[in-house]
Amino acid sequence: MQIALLGGTGDIGEGLALRWARDTDHDVVVGSREAEKAAQTVEEYSSKLADHGVDAAIEGRENPDAAADADVVVLSVPAYYLADTVDAVAGNLDGSILVSPAVGMKRDESGMHYNPPGVGSVTQLAVKSAPDGVPVVGAFHNLAAGRLADLDADLDWDVPVVADDADAKETVEGLAGEVDGLRALDAGGLSNAAEVESLTPLLINLAANNDGLHDLGVKFL
Amino acid sequence: MQIALLGGTGDIGEGLALRWARDTDHDVVVGSREAEKAAQTVEEYSSKLADHGVDAAIEGRENPDAAADADVVVLSVPAYYLADTVDAVAGNLDGSILVSPAVGMKRDESGMHYNPPGVGSVTQLAVKSAPDGVPVVGAFHNLAAGRLADLDADLDWDVPVVADDADAKETVEGLAGEVDGLRALDAGGLSNAAEVESLTPLLINLAANNDGLHDLGVKFL
Repeated sequence: MQIALLGGTGDIGEGLALRWARDTDHDVVVGSREAEKAAQTVEEYSSKLADHGVDAAIEGRENPDAAADADVVVLSVPAYYLADTVDAVAGNLDGSILVSPAVGMKRDESGMHYNPPGVGSVTQLAVKSAPDGVPVVGAFHNLAAGRLADLDADLDWDVPVVADDADAKETVEGLAGEVDGLRALDAGGLSNAAEVESLTPLLINLAANNDGLHDLGVKFL
Repeated sequence: MQIALLGGTGDIGEGLALRWARDTDHDVVVGSREAEKAAQTVEEYSSKLADHGVDAAIEGRENPDAAADADVVVLSVPAYYLADTVDAVAGNLDGSILVSPAVGMKRDESGMHYNPPGVGSVTQLAVKSAPDGVPVVGAFHNLAAGRLADLDADLDWDVPVVADDADAKETVEGLAGEVDGLRALDAGGLSNAAEVESLTPLLINLAANNDGLHDLGVKFL
């Protein structure tokens, strides 16, 4: 399968790219708004992978080219870039599954708070932005980017997944579960996305307030 | 320490009463709107404890009497009874810490959704309902009542705690941590309560959609 990580040059995109490249046989394509940045990033990722004995050919492309051949397109961009990012690749999404991991948050003096867009969740904003017929799956909202990108760190995290399209959901659950230490869980339909996304500010608040806890994920048991 | 569980005759109140009685030396008082129901419930709890070799003297009282001598008063009632329950005991809360574990939720065809009151969270509604000077702590929102009340079940769950009063928070974190298998975590101030409460509908959605998962709690790691 070919996976494109749009905005794969930062945050959660790095960790997903590195771990899919290391733990699976899927083709990983890192997308960026600038071809040069994509190429640079891919060189950096390949070198990190080589340091861990992994010889994986990650490609770097501009976002529209990255999306063109991909079976799964991950919108690993901040929530406020999401609609523009989908617009920029909209013509190349035919036959692809769109994955939305972004969370809208705002900080005040007390901590981080969930701050969803008017449609209810960022995942639902992705649905609104996506061309008709392109299934959207919400996943990977609750992964701590730093630990995810550290290939020396073992994970033991759950990945709640929401979607209305059962096949698309199953595909993304599969991709999540193929990463060592991640377990995909079905969190229901797209209208349940807010309950998944709002876990992320809680993870940040817990890490901020408890000594010894940082880069937190979650396990349901 | 004396702990009163108002509405301790059902849901999460049962599990907290049983486990505090089994795992700590604190005095546990079960409150109800009716003295008879409180007495009946206490008999039932004592018999469950006796079945597990625990000889603990739990008391049963009407809510106002239960609150009167308590150091910590837990509002283990549904969110829509919370304000009335606080009103009924308001004269007896001097010197007590009020604990709010309730969550406002509503169900649609897709699953369970967080449905906070206008003040932002049920915990903040408890603050609004409490007499001046009575500190409120949000805790125990994310515990599955069934498993909590099953003394044969081992727990391995985290309890995010929110409060603005540092001493009150520390006391409640202590009480949470004294239960075998619970770890208290500081989730920040009262204005972070919504991020804690909204985890509960996610737990319910995950249990509803995944074979083999039920009565879920959460561990942050």
